[in-house]
Amino acid sequence: MHHIQHNWQVIRFDGEAPLSLEDEIAIEFPMTVLLNGEEFATMVCSPTALEELAIGFLASEGIIRSYKEIVSLLVDESKGFAYIDIAKKSEAIPQDQSKRFIGSCCGKSRQFYFQSDVRTAKTVYSRLSVTVEQCYRLMNQLQLESEQFIRTGGVHNAALAEPDEMLAIRMDIGRHNTLDKIYGHIIKQHVPVKNKLIVFSGRISSEILLKISKIGTGIVISKSAPTDLALQLANDLGITVIGFARANKMNVYTHPHRVKEANDDV
Amino acid sequence: MHHIQHNWQVIRFDGEAPLSLEDEIAIEFPMTVLLNGEEFATMVCSPTALEELAIGFLASEGIIRSYKEIVSLLVDESKGFAYIDIAKKSEAIPQDQSKRFIGSCCGKSRQFYFQSDVRTAKTVYSRLSVTVEQCYRLMNQLQLESEQFIRTGGVHNAALAEPDEMLAIRMDIGRHNTLDKIYGHIIKQHVPVKNKLIVFSGRISSEILLKISKIGTGIVISKSAPTDLALQLANDLGITVIGFARANKMNVYTHPHRVKEANDDV
Repeated sequence: MHHIQHNWQVIRFDGEAPLSLEDEIAIEFPMTVLLNGEEFATMVCSPTALEELAIGFLASEGIIRSYKEIVSLLVDESKGFAYIDIAKKSEAIPQDQSKRFIGSCCGKSRQFYFQSDVRTAKTVYSRLSVTVEQCYRLMNQLQLESEQFIRTGGVHNAALAEPDEMLAIRMDIGRHNTLDKIYGHIIKQHVPVKNKLIVFSGRISSEILLKISKIGTGIVISKSAPTDLALQLANDLGITVIGFARANKMNVYTHPHRVKEANDDV
Repeated sequence: MHHIQHNWQVIRFDGEAPLSLEDEIAIEFPMTVLLNGEEFATMVCSPTALEELAIGFLASEGIIRSYKEIVSLLVDESKGFAYIDIAKKSEAIPQDQSKRFIGSCCGKSRQFYFQSDVRTAKTVYSRLSVTVEQCYRLMNQLQLESEQFIRTGGVHNAALAEPDEMLAIRMDIGRHNTLDKIYGHIIKQHVPVKNKLIVFSGRISSEILLKISKIGTGIVISKSAPTDLALQLANDLGITVIGFARANKMNVYTHPHRVKEANDDV
């Protein structure tokens, strides 16, 4: 297991005499995915859950749909390589996806919006609902657990949750990578998603929204703002977007029928 | 001129009765760059300074180095197309850069780190220095001006500045786009950069750092955290990285000789 942060000597100014001290800095780790022996993409990430990242990335790209399509998977953490063989022939994989370098804050799913997203993005028919209190609690929990996890700043978190339970949290310096790690976890563990929701620290752009539609969860709760394109897509794809969520307030932007003021079952 | 935000009907929960109100949401605008008549890339951005964005993007990609290489440039804002003809022949432009879709938070410069970045990234020999007070003032100013500019959240800002003067501020939903807009401004207006610095709202990743090295400024002041890869590159390329900058505190991570406690000239 790699470290996710390094110490770095820093000079701190804060009104007092300048202080030289060691500070923790988030690591940017390049991982190259070799698909059926060919360089497919290099992404920059935090070096955690690399197998899940590789799986979720390929699923986000529409290369695989289930874990059983993967013939073999080996992550060499020391060198930063993920070797993945899939049953699908290389000829069936679009050529224009080869040898691209993916930045830490982007998945390649951005390509789908204008090209093949129309095919791969799924409308979500989840009948899950959450109460306002459950949303507050989940966001609070994401915040608390991520603070314990890393103190360097500049990292994002995504979580898979049920209304009353946090199931899995993944962190990364890249917004998109956090969701790919969650997606990889879902695929590898065969987690049913209809009764799940996503809790997320970052902005909900169209790319993030499309990733959520591929995962297939009907509700996303974010600490940050959505964009208008993401909201248009969320409207079309049946996804409830909750933004600016804190421990005691939030905005519901789309499909508010899934958000209850109090639990009707009680 | 396009709007940069739309109104969206939102339900706000904050402990009181839920409130239905109109909220301002940042626009995600797709712009496709046609280079010498061929689709080069589509990026998602905030629809401001589109000409500067197109110019800065091509410069970041290493396609152009100066404004005079551009034979013609036309931005069709209604359709989201930038038509750019350059003197360089299409055959001289690497083929693997064609038809890629660029997400709102990524410039394609990320490719340079592992491929051609070693060639295009420049070591910066700027002898500019700043005082701690000047840094505080610039960060404060970026913060104030950006708050006036947009209230939707989730947008980034980059500014070109001299130690005592803010020269140009550009906003965008994408971190990388803000710097490309600044780069485009510099190239179009032939702004000398040796005595300039960059003030930035976002995290300093390796890609951002490389973009700054291409622009050629020796100091970057950011509100956010740097990554370790960015700091290694900054060390190598001679760039002073200041992070977590607020109105009265900041951390200096690399090349601290450019940061003075007080102005020696006084």
